[in-house]
Amino acid sequence: MLLEISDEELKRRRTALLKELNERGVKAYIIFSATDIFYLTRFAFIPTERPAALVLTATDQAILFVPRLEEEHAQEGARVDRVRSYPEYPTTRHPLEYLKDLLEELGLSRGPLGVDADGYASPMGYRGPRLSQLLPATEVTVLRGLVEKLRMIKAAEEVALIRESARWGNLAHTLLQEYARAGLTELEISPRASMEATLIMMRTLGKNYRPVAFGGVGASAGFRGQIGPNSALPHAVTTNARLKPGDVLVTGAGARVGGYGSELERTMFVGEPTPKQRWFFEKMMGAQEVAFAAIKPGRKCSEVDREVLRYYEEEGLMEYWRHHTGHALGLLGHEAPFFDQGDETVIEPGMVFSVEPGLYVPGLGGFRHSDTILVTSTGIELITYYPRDLESLIVPDK
Amino acid sequence: MLLEISDEELKRRRTALLKELNERGVKAYIIFSATDIFYLTRFAFIPTERPAALVLTATDQAILFVPRLEEEHAQEGARVDRVRSYPEYPTTRHPLEYLKDLLEELGLSRGPLGVDADGYASPMGYRGPRLSQLLPATEVTVLRGLVEKLRMIKAAEEVALIRESARWGNLAHTLLQEYARAGLTELEISPRASMEATLIMMRTLGKNYRPVAFGGVGASAGFRGQIGPNSALPHAVTTNARLKPGDVLVTGAGARVGGYGSELERTMFVGEPTPKQRWFFEKMMGAQEVAFAAIKPGRKCSEVDREVLRYYEEEGLMEYWRHHTGHALGLLGHEAPFFDQGDETVIEPGMVFSVEPGLYVPGLGGFRHSDTILVTSTGIELITYYPRDLESLIVPDK
Repeated sequence: MLLEISDEELKRRRTALLKELNERGVKAYIIFSATDIFYLTRFAFIPTERPAALVLTATDQAILFVPRLEEEHAQEGARVDRVRSYPEYPTTRHPLEYLKDLLEELGLSRGPLGVDADGYASPMGYRGPRLSQLLPATEVTVLRGLVEKLRMIKAAEEVALIRESARWGNLAHTLLQEYARAGLTELEISPRASMEATLIMMRTLGKNYRPVAFGGVGASAGFRGQIGPNSALPHAVTTNARLKPGDVLVTGAGARVGGYGSELERTMFVGEPTPKQRWFFEKMMGAQEVAFAAIKPGRKCSEVDREVLRYYEEEGLMEYWRHHTGHALGLLGHEAPFFDQGDETVIEPGMVFSVEPGLYVPGLGGFRHSDTILVTSTGIELITYYPRDLESLIVPDK
Repeated sequence: MLLEISDEELKRRRTALLKELNERGVKAYIIFSATDIFYLTRFAFIPTERPAALVLTATDQAILFVPRLEEEHAQEGARVDRVRSYPEYPTTRHPLEYLKDLLEELGLSRGPLGVDADGYASPMGYRGPRLSQLLPATEVTVLRGLVEKLRMIKAAEEVALIRESARWGNLAHTLLQEYARAGLTELEISPRASMEATLIMMRTLGKNYRPVAFGGVGASAGFRGQIGPNSALPHAVTTNARLKPGDVLVTGAGARVGGYGSELERTMFVGEPTPKQRWFFEKMMGAQEVAFAAIKPGRKCSEVDREVLRYYEEEGLMEYWRHHTGHALGLLGHEAPFFDQGDETVIEPGMVFSVEPGLYVPGLGGFRHSDTILVTSTGIELITYYPRDLESLIVPDK
């Protein structure tokens, strides 16, 4: 079975979005987000200084607007009714002028129009007008996050891809643990584990795996700099440290399947942990258990984080707190909603989250497991299944 | 010698930016761009839904505003006068309210203020007010691209890092060519070449190489899906195709050194090319030669692209045209200005560009070399030096 989102699911998404558009009375919705364009059309492309946009009309026509260099690529890869290209950016006429032409041809330039953002944006040297400047006589309303909201509840097909991702993340992590030992550097371990897991994944799935998808290809596992005392930085970046006896490690692994990812992170030790390290490990496990138990459909995301925060307070751990309990994920590594005391989103079946409360002890290290969970009708199901217990997470110290 | 930007160069940048701020009469400049924050502070971090910003006052105080989970990381890695953190996003009080507190404490909340963008932006579920909404009584002016403009002219130190990048991109590409042959898939070749080049790079440079920098670590080389007919898509993405006799390949290689990259791309053949393939290869080389000869300080970027376009027209190649001649690069893979008929930026010594006019023949393949060049006082110097001639670019067809 092909590991990608089906045409039927794409249709369901488009229908759900059209309903939103009709309720808002706009004649078309213009989407600049590359994530949302993939979600609606299955077209994965490299965003650059050259604008791309999906125009979805209230009469259910989808036109993909791309630079000339993406025309054949979009024709081939995008499930849309039509592809329209403009020459280049910047050239002598701005790309958005061509978008204006298209809207005029479609009879949409009088609006009212919805947009996901009032113009294109890119850090790669792009400059351009707002759509509301380009179409001064048109009612242009920023309807932010309509697609993002659809993305929050995963369809069965999406969950299946996330499960498949977790499988290969698990293999990459297994190889990472197998190759990790004192004396090796991060870059002597992670790329090897990632490369081998990717090759095995390709050979196992064969033609059912479509590498062309949002977010890239293959499996990976690594430490992202979280080695020894540096693991006390939740968002450390690679320093290529050498593993030493006594180090705390925080890992991360995942894989891309049909555009979807999963998140698996483990706290590990190089050799036998000290009593202090064990103590923090157990407290971290306790926090994650509190979170697991707190997640139920109908409750708010904030309640989960508040229960975890209560645990930190009761256990005297607040000085080791650095971040909230978790985040949704899917096409992007971080998505809304968040298990955060300020996020009042109601938890619903089909949501997929990371659960990863952490403890960070300067000088000693970081303690964080991250598991990917699916919200079910009664609670949760763990999608990641790598061992969580301390004894399973020790790598050789010589 | 440590392969990173020095404190002196950081100071030069800050001084240059302060001059711009003083000319514009703002009391402070608020920078949300992660690229520009690295450029000014050497702090490399993972941008997420949690806002980060650099506040640079007209009195030369630099304060980095980060989420709690980045506080120690910023303290350690950012060359700033002070780090200020807020708890988390979203929480019960919006991060930008904490930024407002900071501006008030600094006596800046009355303005006038400059900002690189009127608020933070992230695709990862972030929502927040514009700064102009947050500070309704303050004059807030969007001064877009002040830092980007500084980044256009590379200092000697930057050029040295780009040269170093090209060296390891050259090794990665050499290994890619060594491992490529008919019968292997893309993912059996590229990750191996990238991993080995990275390890050799680390062992060669030792402590002089600092992995912690913008844009990641190590060297890489690959095909990005540009194999056989698929190479006719300039921005193809990996399909994990198997190399076959007769395939045209388009490669890409580079490395990250102190945050800086380089771009090396080559058109290659699996076995002896056909006369038709040779013909397009030679025409592509001709276009690149036209571009090389056209680049001179004092001319406009547009003139280079127009000369290349004239060549396409004279040679009857316009149907194979898909994109402009090149782009600047440095911290980002694509930066302004562009060798594009609509870019009137004057070429100056110290600018670094890719030169990569391409020919794309549906069904046959793509033909593009990309070289990184430095603009000198009289013309150009090639920073990449991988062989460009056809006979050097054939890989085994069995």
